[in-house]
Amino acid sequence: MKVRLGAATKHFRTVTFDAGQNAVMLIEQRLLPHSFQVVAAHDYRQTAEAIRAMVVRGAGAIGATAAYGLAQGMRAFSGKSIERFAHHTRTVYRTLEAARPTAVDPVNAMQTVLAATEPGESVAEKQALALAAAEEFANEDVRHCEELGRHGARLIRNGMRVLTHCNAGWLAFVDVGSATAPLYTAQAQGKKFEVYCDETRPRCQGATLTAWELAQQGIPHRVIADNAAGHLMQRGKIDLVIVGSDRTLGRTGEVANKIGTYTKAVLAHHHQIPFYVAIPLSTIDWKLRSGFDIPIEERCEAEVLGAWGVIENNKTITRTRSKARKSEAPQPVYVRIANPGSSAVNPGFDVTPPDLITGIITPAGIFKPGELWRKRRELGFR
Amino acid sequence: MKVRLGAATKHFRTVTFDAGQNAVMLIEQRLLPHSFQVVAAHDYRQTAEAIRAMVVRGAGAIGATAAYGLAQGMRAFSGKSIERFAHHTRTVYRTLEAARPTAVDPVNAMQTVLAATEPGESVAEKQALALAAAEEFANEDVRHCEELGRHGARLIRNGMRVLTHCNAGWLAFVDVGSATAPLYTAQAQGKKFEVYCDETRPRCQGATLTAWELAQQGIPHRVIADNAAGHLMQRGKIDLVIVGSDRTLGRTGEVANKIGTYTKAVLAHHHQIPFYVAIPLSTIDWKLRSGFDIPIEERCEAEVLGAWGVIENNKTITRTRSKARKSEAPQPVYVRIANPGSSAVNPGFDVTPPDLITGIITPAGIFKPGELWRKRRELGFR
Repeated sequence: MKVRLGAATKHFRTVTFDAGQNAVMLIEQRLLPHSFQVVAAHDYRQTAEAIRAMVVRGAGAIGATAAYGLAQGMRAFSGKSIERFAHHTRTVYRTLEAARPTAVDPVNAMQTVLAATEPGESVAEKQALALAAAEEFANEDVRHCEELGRHGARLIRNGMRVLTHCNAGWLAFVDVGSATAPLYTAQAQGKKFEVYCDETRPRCQGATLTAWELAQQGIPHRVIADNAAGHLMQRGKIDLVIVGSDRTLGRTGEVANKIGTYTKAVLAHHHQIPFYVAIPLSTIDWKLRSGFDIPIEERCEAEVLGAWGVIENNKTITRTRSKARKSEAPQPVYVRIANPGSSAVNPGFDVTPPDLITGIITPAGIFKPGELWRKRRELGFR
Repeated sequence: MKVRLGAATKHFRTVTFDAGQNAVMLIEQRLLPHSFQVVAAHDYRQTAEAIRAMVVRGAGAIGATAAYGLAQGMRAFSGKSIERFAHHTRTVYRTLEAARPTAVDPVNAMQTVLAATEPGESVAEKQALALAAAEEFANEDVRHCEELGRHGARLIRNGMRVLTHCNAGWLAFVDVGSATAPLYTAQAQGKKFEVYCDETRPRCQGATLTAWELAQQGIPHRVIADNAAGHLMQRGKIDLVIVGSDRTLGRTGEVANKIGTYTKAVLAHHHQIPFYVAIPLSTIDWKLRSGFDIPIEERCEAEVLGAWGVIENNKTITRTRSKARKSEAPQPVYVRIANPGSSAVNPGFDVTPPDLITGIITPAGIFKPGELWRKRRELGFR
C-alpha cells in the first residue's frame, strides 16, 4: 500500500525479493510507527533471524518471507549435485521453520515452494522454480486480500464509524491486509467513513500499526483506549466492527484472535452492532473440534506492566529529550507503568464463539460462522 | 492503611493535619507507585495548588483536603476583627474552590466546616471550631468507608477471584476506600481471595495505585490488560466485580465511573457474574433524571496516545537507565506509543445502567440500584 515519504507517496509491500542481490527486503516493523525503513536480509540465516526477531510479523507476511527465504537459500547453492542441493535445502528449511516454531504459515508456504521445485531436473531449474513459486505465493496472498476486500467493502456505507482491533492490516500480510482490506477497497470506491482503532493493549498494535497504516492511506481515524469502545457503542457512535483472526475453527465457527476481541464481540452483541471477522482461507483450522482446545499463549508479564514508546515533549527530562531529537530515528524505550512489586497475567489471545459473530468475510464471500463446515468443499478443503 | 517502608510498616492516611505547623500533610500521589513521599502544604495556597496539581485526587480525599485547607487558612489569620476574618475566609474558600472547579466534594466539605464555625463568637473560637470540623469531616469519611467495608465483605468468600477497575481505594479517600473497603475488611476477617486489577487505560490507576495499595496490604493480586477481563470471565476465572463510582443517580440507579466500567458491567452481565458498585452516600446525585445528562469529560488526547512510566531494564538506553538509577526516586516520563500523525478520542467516564448492576454497597447497607430512590429518606436525603 501507499507510504508517505516526505511530500511523496510510494507503493510498498511488506516483503519483496531483490533477485539481483538475492535479498529478502522487509519493512522493519519494530520501528513503526516512529520511523519507516526497509531492510535487506542478505542470506537465508538473516531472513530467519528477521522472522524470529519480529522485524516482520503477521501470518501472511511471515509465510511469504519464509517462502522467499527458502528460495533465497536454494539460490545461494553453487554446486550441481542434486543430492547436495537437497541436503542444503533441508538445512535452509529447518532454519526458517525454527524461527517461529509455533507458526503454521511459514511451513505451509515452504511446502508450496518445495512442491513447485519437484519437476525441476537441475539445480538451476529447481532454483528458478523456487523463486517463481515464492513470488506466486506472495502474489496469491495479495489477490486473496483484494478479493476479501471486495466482499467486505459491501458492508461499508457512507458516514459509517467502523471499529477495528489490533492490526490485521497490510503489514501483517504481503499487502492490503484482512480486516483493513474492506476499508481500503471502500476508500477506493469513494466511500467516506471513519475508523476507531482500539489501541489494543498490551502491545498496542492498534495505536501503532493500524493507525500508521490508515494515516498513510489518508483514511480518517482516531485511536481509543480499549476501555472506551463500550461507551462509544452505548452512545451510538460505532456502526460496524471488523477484526482479523489468527485461527478460525471450520467445524464450529469459533474465532481465536488478539486478546480483547472477545470483549468487543460481547459489546457489539449487547448493542446489536454487526461484528465481522475478515480472514484468508488459510487461517481456517478444519481439525479442532472446540475453541477450548486452542492453546492460549501466556505472554510475558512485562508487556502488561509497562509499554514501549518514544520520549517526546517531556519537560522534566530535557537532556533525554534532546538526545532523542539528535538521533535521526526516535528509539522506542520500555517504561514500567505498574507498581514495581506487582505481577501480571497476560493471555495473548481469546476465543469468540459463533453466536457473537455476524459474518466471516473471506476471499470466497461472506459466510455465517456456522456455514463454514457445510461449505468446506466449496472453500477448497479436501 | 499500612505502607511498607523498608522492613517496617506504618499506618498512613491520604491527608492529615499537623496543627503545630498549621500544615496539611499529603501523600504525593503523583510519585506512586514508584516512590512514597508525604509532603507538607504550609499555607492554604499551597494546599489549593496540591489539589489543582493532583498531588491528592479522589472525591473523599480532595474533600477532606479542602476542609483542612479552609481551617488552615482561617488559622493563619492573626487579627481579632470578625469582619476582616470573614473577608479572609471568603478568599481562602474561593482559592480552594477554584483548584478543581468541577468537583463537588471540596465545596460540600468547606460548607460543612463553615457551618460549624457559626456558633463561634471570636476569631479564635471560629478557628478552633473550623479545625475540629475538618478533623470530624475526615474521620467521618473513614467511618463511612469502614461501614461500607463491613457490608461489602459479606460478598467475599474464601477462594474468590475479584475484579476491580481503576482506583477507588484508600488513596482516593482519607483512608480505607470504597471499592477496596470490602477487600480490606475481608482480609481482616481472615478470608483468602485474589484480586485482578484492570490496568485501566489510559491513566492506568489500576496498575499503579490499586496494585500499590494491595501490595502494601499483602493482598494477592495481579494486573491485567483491560482487554483480558472478558477472556478471564469466559474461562470462569472471575467470581465477583467491585468498582467505585464518581456519581450515582439516586432516581435511576445509573452509575458514572471511570471509562471502561460500563464494558466490565456488560461482560459481567453476559457471564452472569455479580457486579457491585461501592459508594459513600455523598456521591449519590438525587437531582439528575437521566444518565445521559451526566456530562462526560473529554480528556486530553495525549493520555491515550502515550503513557507515563519509569525507564528500567532498558538495554538499548543504558545511559538513561544509569541516570535513573542514580537519582533516589525514579522519575516517571511520558512516552508516545501511537502513530505520531494520529489523533485520539478520550472520554474520561462512562455510565452503567441499573440493569447491569447487581447491587450498590453503601455505608448503610447493600441496595438494588432501583431501591435507592424509594429509600432516599432512610439514606438521609431530605
